[in-house]
Amino acid sequence: MNYRIIGRTAGTILLTEAVCLVIPLIAALIYGEGVLPFIISAAVMCAVGVPLNRLKLGKTRFYARDGFAAAALGWMIMSLFGALPFALCGRLGSFADCVFESASGFTTTGSSILTDIESLPKSILLWRSFTHFIGGMGVVVLTTAIVPADGERAQFLMRAEVPGPTADKLVPRLADSSKILYAIYAALTVIQIILLLICGLSFYDSLNVAFATAGTGGFSVMNASIGGYGNSAAEVVTSVFMLLFALNFVIYFLIITKKAKQALMSEELRFFLAVVLAAIIIVAVNTAGYYSSLGENLRITFFTVASIISSTGFSVTDHDLWPELSKSVVIIIMMIGACAGSTGGGIKASRVLLGLRTLKRAILQMIHPNSVNIVRLDGRAVEEKTLIGIMQFIVAYFLTLFIVMLLLSFDRLGFVERFTAALTCMSNVGPGLGAIGPSGNFAALSVFSKLLLALTMIIGRLEIWPILIFFSSFVSKK
Amino acid sequence: MNYRIIGRTAGTILLTEAVCLVIPLIAALIYGEGVLPFIISAAVMCAVGVPLNRLKLGKTRFYARDGFAAAALGWMIMSLFGALPFALCGRLGSFADCVFESASGFTTTGSSILTDIESLPKSILLWRSFTHFIGGMGVVVLTTAIVPADGERAQFLMRAEVPGPTADKLVPRLADSSKILYAIYAALTVIQIILLLICGLSFYDSLNVAFATAGTGGFSVMNASIGGYGNSAAEVVTSVFMLLFALNFVIYFLIITKKAKQALMSEELRFFLAVVLAAIIIVAVNTAGYYSSLGENLRITFFTVASIISSTGFSVTDHDLWPELSKSVVIIIMMIGACAGSTGGGIKASRVLLGLRTLKRAILQMIHPNSVNIVRLDGRAVEEKTLIGIMQFIVAYFLTLFIVMLLLSFDRLGFVERFTAALTCMSNVGPGLGAIGPSGNFAALSVFSKLLLALTMIIGRLEIWPILIFFSSFVSKK
Repeated sequence: MNYRIIGRTAGTILLTEAVCLVIPLIAALIYGEGVLPFIISAAVMCAVGVPLNRLKLGKTRFYARDGFAAAALGWMIMSLFGALPFALCGRLGSFADCVFESASGFTTTGSSILTDIESLPKSILLWRSFTHFIGGMGVVVLTTAIVPADGERAQFLMRAEVPGPTADKLVPRLADSSKILYAIYAALTVIQIILLLICGLSFYDSLNVAFATAGTGGFSVMNASIGGYGNSAAEVVTSVFMLLFALNFVIYFLIITKKAKQALMSEELRFFLAVVLAAIIIVAVNTAGYYSSLGENLRITFFTVASIISSTGFSVTDHDLWPELSKSVVIIIMMIGACAGSTGGGIKASRVLLGLRTLKRAILQMIHPNSVNIVRLDGRAVEEKTLIGIMQFIVAYFLTLFIVMLLLSFDRLGFVERFTAALTCMSNVGPGLGAIGPSGNFAALSVFSKLLLALTMIIGRLEIWPILIFFSSFVSKK
Repeated sequence: MNYRIIGRTAGTILLTEAVCLVIPLIAALIYGEGVLPFIISAAVMCAVGVPLNRLKLGKTRFYARDGFAAAALGWMIMSLFGALPFALCGRLGSFADCVFESASGFTTTGSSILTDIESLPKSILLWRSFTHFIGGMGVVVLTTAIVPADGERAQFLMRAEVPGPTADKLVPRLADSSKILYAIYAALTVIQIILLLICGLSFYDSLNVAFATAGTGGFSVMNASIGGYGNSAAEVVTSVFMLLFALNFVIYFLIITKKAKQALMSEELRFFLAVVLAAIIIVAVNTAGYYSSLGENLRITFFTVASIISSTGFSVTDHDLWPELSKSVVIIIMMIGACAGSTGGGIKASRVLLGLRTLKRAILQMIHPNSVNIVRLDGRAVEEKTLIGIMQFIVAYFLTLFIVMLLLSFDRLGFVERFTAALTCMSNVGPGLGAIGPSGNFAALSVFSKLLLALTMIIGRLEIWPILIFFSSFVSKK
């Protein structure tokens, strides 16, 4: 392990985080709220970050494992230090609660330990929403966009952070790729803010909703989530943007570079939209008697399906009260999740699609043992290595899920809560079912469960391997 | 598809099944119960089986796909016709109930729709237990042991039926292998019967318990399962034999041929026993206050862990009343299941072990991209093809599990029931948790759910692929 480079990356991340605190600090000044939580937090981040950032790298090489370990440590440190403003404002309970909320923010999960969100200072809630925005596109992507770094190092770091089976660079230079990604990300966010303003939301609310949508996070400043605004137009806008942020950003790049046709031919996109459509139809039919009109039913169903599959986790209804079939659909789209290269979580549409094609090929090969079957995506043959990696990822996903479920049994949680807590944190969605459903929260969990789930969120956000590699580096020294 | 050979295999299976009805027929004569259900059933089986068995094979070749399809059809037909005695005795409710019970028997699942088992005729209950014995070692293994068949055909059939990632032949000639397997199977069963008689059980009870243990099935003639005898010695004997039947039968072959040392070095055996031991320790500590003494606690814990991991499903306690941690352990050992080459179900210990080693290798390869890591079992390198097959199996296992869970949502089942019903049927265990737990049954389910679960049991018993290949042969004609 190259500890110097890992430490330096952590330092850069901490300094970036300190700069990000300017946003809630401005809000605190505007609303006349306490500025000390942000100033002290930024000071602590700098006090730790500056010396780390000054570590001399020497001429040592940077390997893939260092990239994974640096991303893992970076995200854990970011979540830990990001909890400082929550802790210093003194309104969130124990430090474990603050770490849970911070990890939930950066990983864009959106699970919360808060029982009365609206009673908190506006600046603190803005920081909470803004952590989604930082974590959504990824802090490594952010630092490579703004800090010059050598190509190899940045590439390994990004590979660990960007979701999906393969990390495509948009343009040859990685720093340029990162800038383009952030520009698309920021542009979409600004468009959503403008549309929400037009719908009648205040600037503060629009900002919070857009930050949480962009990162597919799900934190809201309202106790009743988006449903609390009672604004149907804002709900529809948010539904659409949750889906937009759940698409592979390569699609927007293709559209910008006038390759819209190629973008729309993407098989992952088509598969993802087909799943969304199927889920909406099943749930809408299944919940037919639950809402006063077909229009209301469709609006709520569309919102909820978009919210869950994009791994955002906003709510306008308590889907825990839905019939069992709809709840099963919710669980399954939680697992599938968003597209690769998006800000969303889950197994990812392209992995599910390629996983199904791999199983189909396995069956075809048993029927015709001598036939050669190539798994394709968008017309191109997918490497065997990638397919094996996908199968391994899916197995590791379920293994982690059931280990977390087992460890949560030390808490007095029912089976539904145990299973959906592990699932919603692995897939970075937010609410589960039962007591931790859309109307509930994670406040009642033990400190052990909260820290375990915070780690689970980071495992899910970084797609399992970086965290495993980080911890296994302590075990094996070779 | 070679329909002639598939039809002929189905015919052979039906005739074998008709012969098996002699056992309950004798019981009916002894106990002065109705013999007609068995005679009529046997007549129907012969009426369909004889013409099928006379199908001319010609000189067509038999391919792997035909073996899978024949095994799939054979098992579905066997379950369907095996329901006849239940239906004709007129005491089991609808025909769907009878099919459920029959499929549960042959697949050695042991889930039941019966609410009052003890009220049924003894001969019917003996048939019910005997289906476990037939299905445990496999009807294809049985027919290859008694009916001469060409090597290739029998081998493809057995590959579809014998559980585990690879089907090892014990001796060069397959028919000899089958005979040896059945001899070991029968010998162990006889030893268990003798031990149960010594423990004080009646011959009838000993026979039923031993048949259900041998097949790792779990049907009991008592409403309270093995707990109904109140016989601690019989419980301990049954615990030990549930584990013995969950081991790879190759181990017994090695012991017989004086290679005991090699048998005990088996990594699958060691991994399986380590999981059993770990589960017993966790559950025993977790249920410390639930039983009057440590001895009782250990006896019940040992019995339950052996029953679940071997996929038998007998019970001496209602483990649905255990604390959550123990219930999570129950769910996880349900997934792991028995050893390959045993009569038990589940993912299988060797697949889990090799799956974990494959994931470990994946991590090592990310840390050291240029290193060569070979996954070994018992000192020998495992082929890449086998490892990929294992990963595909595990993914297909969870895919099937969640699809069945989704389809069960059409019934008014809670999440715990839905998930554990799908799981217990996939792994051929028997009881689930909640309303379908050890004290409950599957009677209240809809006809659709019962037939779906009957199919799920066969999918689990034949390890997924044969059923998928069978149904996909209707879709694709190439």
